[in-house]
Amino acid sequence: MKDCKAALCQNWITNDKEQTVKSAVEQVRQATAEGADFVALPEMFVCPYTNRSMRESSEPLYGPTADALSSCAAQNGIYLIGGSFPEETESGLYNTCMVFDPSGNHIATHRKAHLFDVDVKDKISYRESDTFLPGNEVCVVDTDFGRIGVGICFDIRFPEYFRKLVLSGCEIVFVPSSFGNATGEAHWVLSMRMRAVDNQCYMLGIQPAPNPDLPYQAYGHTVATDPWGIVLGELNTAPGILYAELFASRIQQVRDEFPLLKARRPELYV
Amino acid sequence: MKDCKAALCQNWITNDKEQTVKSAVEQVRQATAEGADFVALPEMFVCPYTNRSMRESSEPLYGPTADALSSCAAQNGIYLIGGSFPEETESGLYNTCMVFDPSGNHIATHRKAHLFDVDVKDKISYRESDTFLPGNEVCVVDTDFGRIGVGICFDIRFPEYFRKLVLSGCEIVFVPSSFGNATGEAHWVLSMRMRAVDNQCYMLGIQPAPNPDLPYQAYGHTVATDPWGIVLGELNTAPGILYAELFASRIQQVRDEFPLLKARRPELYV
Repeated sequence: MKDCKAALCQNWITNDKEQTVKSAVEQVRQATAEGADFVALPEMFVCPYTNRSMRESSEPLYGPTADALSSCAAQNGIYLIGGSFPEETESGLYNTCMVFDPSGNHIATHRKAHLFDVDVKDKISYRESDTFLPGNEVCVVDTDFGRIGVGICFDIRFPEYFRKLVLSGCEIVFVPSSFGNATGEAHWVLSMRMRAVDNQCYMLGIQPAPNPDLPYQAYGHTVATDPWGIVLGELNTAPGILYAELFASRIQQVRDEFPLLKARRPELYV
Repeated sequence: MKDCKAALCQNWITNDKEQTVKSAVEQVRQATAEGADFVALPEMFVCPYTNRSMRESSEPLYGPTADALSSCAAQNGIYLIGGSFPEETESGLYNTCMVFDPSGNHIATHRKAHLFDVDVKDKISYRESDTFLPGNEVCVVDTDFGRIGVGICFDIRFPEYFRKLVLSGCEIVFVPSSFGNATGEAHWVLSMRMRAVDNQCYMLGIQPAPNPDLPYQAYGHTVATDPWGIVLGELNTAPGILYAELFASRIQQVRDEFPLLKARRPELYV
């Protein structure tokens, strides 16, 4: 990889989709003014995280959201990891992230591969698979700054997914997410840090700000960790942008000093 | 699994091997008096963690240490996860853990599968493979309380190893270790918690107490985490015993409410 700067936009979601996308686009402009090379948005950044809102906000892959993101990437001249939106297809809906290059070209798509079907007593009960189909690929993208990976929210729960990204050459991994409070407090930073430690990569987790007027409260706490698991920065719950400077030498140092990726014993794990 | 109680002995290591083993055996007796079903010792609990001491303290699999551990297990009527000692074989030395049942029978052996070869600037430089050969198996053991797994220290660095244990049916995993201060502060509790969260199992990490008179200072901080990653207890640096009550219902609850192990997508990870 090459040294670069990432901006993680903890955005503000309302029931007004057009206004919500517009404010996210404004955050990207601000981040660009601060010198960001990569700008990332959170999971389902276009609408409230309810099955009804997501169905109502769904659109085809190349719909108005893709148009807005593509223009935004091109106008700002940055790589844009476009959070996710409810993608409508002939088979059904996907929770989909589109990645754009600084010319506004669509260069990758990640459809959330692990769906959040849980029932934690008195805390959270949700079946994402009632609304979405699961994607069937890991997302690896080549950029001018190096190879990056993308996972969406619940994908973080699966160490194999991130191992696969890193064994595929990713050194920076973006995780647009929308953890809630219960699992957020329990596991959000822990998970981001540990995937970084295990895989000796930068882990960048992007969350929406919680909006108390919506039925689902996101946890916030957008976070960036370095390849030793050190938290480079973490937001609280207000909307805002977290910046992280990413250094090729830091990846190299950690991987040289502590060569975990070479010390694997794949023959034992099968 | 069945409900049970584990005792993790943070022991005191000196240059006197006989005395060191004797004091560990005394800790096991104390733990039994408190009702422990499983008692575990740390990595290399018999001698200081230096290449010279480990070579000098090496012995065959069925040597005086195995005799002491077997008698200790039988006299106390407990399962004993015997930390590790330097095992001498015709091919060379291994960093070896022996497990005994409550009748003193030797029921499993784990030879550390990942060796600690690192060079962290100004902090720690060590090549364990100068002294030891790596083991070639994961360690799964059936007991009256359920299936348990064992990994030794640097094995914890590899998520695949613990995934393999849990997919093999382990619900309780013992990790006799000897993390030092630099990596201990950075990653010890984090790693134990995250393996527990990912694998929805009890993770029990056993460390020696640091002895300032020895060249290598262990980090201490013996720790037990539940299957949601909650720290059930953690020692500081003094010698002592950490007790943890392990409940079958807790494993079941976490795995039912948050079915991560069923939500894996193995076809994506290859």
